[in-house]
Amino acid sequence: MYNPQLDQHKKLKHLLTIEGLPKATLLQILDTAETFIGVNEREVKKVPLLRGKTVCNLFFENSTRTRTTFEIAAKRLSADVLNLNVSTSSQSKGETILDTVNNLIAMHSDMFVVRHNQSGAAHFIAQHVPDHISVINAGDGRHAHPTQGLLDVFTIRRYKPDMHNLRVAIVGDVLHSRVARSEIHALTTLGVPEVRVVAPNTLLPADVHKLGVQVFHDMQAGLKDVDVVMMLRLQNERMSGALLPSAQEYFKTYGLTPEKLALAKPDAIVMHPGPMNRGVEIDSRVADGAQSVILPQVTYGIAIRMAVMALLAGGHNA
Amino acid sequence: MYNPQLDQHKKLKHLLTIEGLPKATLLQILDTAETFIGVNEREVKKVPLLRGKTVCNLFFENSTRTRTTFEIAAKRLSADVLNLNVSTSSQSKGETILDTVNNLIAMHSDMFVVRHNQSGAAHFIAQHVPDHISVINAGDGRHAHPTQGLLDVFTIRRYKPDMHNLRVAIVGDVLHSRVARSEIHALTTLGVPEVRVVAPNTLLPADVHKLGVQVFHDMQAGLKDVDVVMMLRLQNERMSGALLPSAQEYFKTYGLTPEKLALAKPDAIVMHPGPMNRGVEIDSRVADGAQSVILPQVTYGIAIRMAVMALLAGGHNA
Amino acid sequence: MYNPQLDQHKKLKHLLTIEGLPKATLLQILDTAETFIGVNEREVKKVPLLRGKTVCNLFFENSTRTRTTFEIAAKRLSADVLNLNVSTSSQSKGETILDTVNNLIAMHSDMFVVRHNQSGAAHFIAQHVPDHISVINAGDGRHAHPTQGLLDVFTIRRYKPDMHNLRVAIVGDVLHSRVARSEIHALTTLGVPEVRVVAPNTLLPADVHKLGVQVFHDMQAGLKDVDVVMMLRLQNERMSGALLPSAQEYFKTYGLTPEKLALAKPDAIVMHPGPMNRGVEIDSRVADGAQSVILPQVTYGIAIRMAVMALLAGGHNA
Repeated sequence: MYNPQLDQHKKLKHLLTIEGLPKATLLQILDTAETFIGVNEREVKKVPLLRGKTVCNLFFENSTRTRTTFEIAAKRLSADVLNLNVSTSSQSKGETILDTVNNLIAMHSDMFVVRHNQSGAAHFIAQHVPDHISVINAGDGRHAHPTQGLLDVFTIRRYKPDMHNLRVAIVGDVLHSRVARSEIHALTTLGVPEVRVVAPNTLLPADVHKLGVQVFHDMQAGLKDVDVVMMLRLQNERMSGALLPSAQEYFKTYGLTPEKLALAKPDAIVMHPGPMNRGVEIDSRVADGAQSVILPQVTYGIAIRMAVMALLAGGHNA
Repeated sequence: MYNPQLDQHKKLKHLLTIEGLPKATLLQILDTAETFIGVNEREVKKVPLLRGKTVCNLFFENSTRTRTTFEIAAKRLSADVLNLNVSTSSQSKGETILDTVNNLIAMHSDMFVVRHNQSGAAHFIAQHVPDHISVINAGDGRHAHPTQGLLDVFTIRRYKPDMHNLRVAIVGDVLHSRVARSEIHALTTLGVPEVRVVAPNTLLPADVHKLGVQVFHDMQAGLKDVDVVMMLRLQNERMSGALLPSAQEYFKTYGLTPEKLALAKPDAIVMHPGPMNRGVEIDSRVADGAQSVILPQVTYGIAIRMAVMALLAGGHNA
Repeated sequence: MYNPQLDQHKKLKHLLTIEGLPKATLLQILDTAETFIGVNEREVKKVPLLRGKTVCNLFFENSTRTRTTFEIAAKRLSADVLNLNVSTSSQSKGETILDTVNNLIAMHSDMFVVRHNQSGAAHFIAQHVPDHISVINAGDGRHAHPTQGLLDVFTIRRYKPDMHNLRVAIVGDVLHSRVARSEIHALTTLGVPEVRVVAPNTLLPADVHKLGVQVFHDMQAGLKDVDVVMMLRLQNERMSGALLPSAQEYFKTYGLTPEKLALAKPDAIVMHPGPMNRGVEIDSRVADGAQSVILPQVTYGIAIRMAVMALLAGGHNA
């Protein structure tokens, strides 16, 4: 099968989605990220790997949070970073996405970090760039957010190294989550034997069973004896929509409280991709509790992004 | 008294307000700033003191002007700078301030420059960050703007070194000014014997007498024989409000004209924190005149901010 | 004649407009740009010429595209870059342009890249800055956009080195184009013997004949045997205005199709300043065709901007 993310030597060329990434590539990214943990803890958090390279944060949809993580990662690799919020400029002048991208390539940009509200945007760009340019998908519609998926499995591996003996529950709005799909693919590829999704039917995709997961509609059954609870963010626009009765009602049924968490294994870890809606999908006592690894996820997210960028840049040098 | 700005060895840990800062600390900042004057006049305006550190300009209220001064200062210290305009991102997604800050800390940020329209925001953040993180208040509501206060006394000391023999008048909207409070505390701490405020009653805080200043409602009396005239900015929203009849009327009574300035000592200096409303609180002949030190204030502002950042970063290295 | 762009030794001091620039200066910029082509093709795209200098992108009108080119150029010269979108900050607080500029000078900025929707804004600033500060006009109203004009002639010289034997056609909205005027002056100064403009009367300035060009209203005659076709962008607001019947009608008459291009010499090159309105002023088959040098223009634009900045900075060092 053609995989646009890998070159003919199976080297990482773009990072568009975790779906279809070989286990060896996943492990290479995770292992590389381990080496960057230390860089971020040093007095001088800087390595020269991308010095003189131009990284474009090409954001067709605003996300300060995600942009910040890539900007920090690129700067710690010594790259020159350009932040381009495209919705407010060329696009409004009628230029096509490809014209915008081709212009930036003509300026000798080396790497694109792409965020778009339409699924497939990063793929589309990757298909049209020359060989020496790399594209990283920083979230496209409901489709994928692969660095988030990678940092999630990196976090799990750090806390629960024996991934072949884990039970993981993903809770919440799987239907609209680009994170959930990335997470499921990563967990499955790394050999996690049991991945559960816990959500009401209205927040599950029609083809959920094809993803290789067990489906639960009930927290009591879904969280029973799991090692990892991965909460998903409930987006504001869902809360008062046709899919859910109310935020309060959602919290009562699917919000992660200490009581519900007690159903999981005693040493289970709790994860959330952020930003959190405290009191909607997660209780503050859990978010800030001893089992929460939500902030370590953020820390590891920088190491993961540095690893992906370093591998993509290095792949072209070799 | 507990002072969150100093650690147990009386070293500067955060800069939140000038109120309560010991004279020795104030002098240390001013003396350090003297060493950075030269850096800013060199061909290569750059020193490696904050190399590999990440400084976050965390602005919950927009202020390009203030953000620019901190960005320049941080970059000349070789830091990596992140500009985060939070009003348009995470906050609108419902994330709390502390979640935003904790995320940035998890990314190994080293320093926060905080601007917020609510008094106490920087204090609040400082109370919740771990020991190795520093917070600089870049303006919080009506409360404080300590780097502005510091650059003001630095400017005065440069032009009028004998601070124990000075008469200083602060003129204008003391009520709504976070600058005025910072200035008054700095001047008092450094031993200036006579600080006056000159303003209509409607622009003075109720507790003005507690600040250790003399109150004047009349420019003729208030400016008489002073060494320094510090004008305050009259914010647009006050001009047509209930507090003042009109901008024209205000200028007639409290606007600094050459005629009114003639009441001060012949070698008196004129200051303004900017941005100026020419023709409202200050006449252009004064703003651009021989006695104006308004632009030197800006120059010294960079040195002061570099000094504060260098001291905060150094305090943790020692 | 007084030329504010040159100092008393005829050295480049500001870049405000191509009008009045001596041929020797134009050639010096083009020749310097040749040396930066290689820098942009290296693994490490970085030279230390502006290290420790502060370049301010002072944009009074939003243009991510233009800002990006200057930001890339300055960063590859190792400058510290400040992006200031002034419309949303100081100006709205009532500060004058000169106060804004003088503040940035007081912070020891070294160079201003100015974009403004009013003609003459960059000149105005250049007249008021001290000797060691340089101003680059990045587009002012309908007046000039000199780096675009320079990159255009640089591109022509690269593809058609014998400029004394060229026939160049500039097609489209000359009336509202700051690019067209810059291009015409550059071509004329460099000795191009025949410059044509092709446009309806409603899109030509009244004094078009004074520019030393031949005027055509018809593509068939205007493109006949030319070596270079320079298309201009048709701004959205013109398309449905009183000046033109419709975008479709405009394309039919003045849009560059393969058929119309066939009237030019077989090896003619096609240029466009971007962003393109495909299907309005240019057909995609031409824009992406073998004769198009539109993306090389963008590449050369970085080299030209680096050359201008390096010459301006070097002029003060010497």
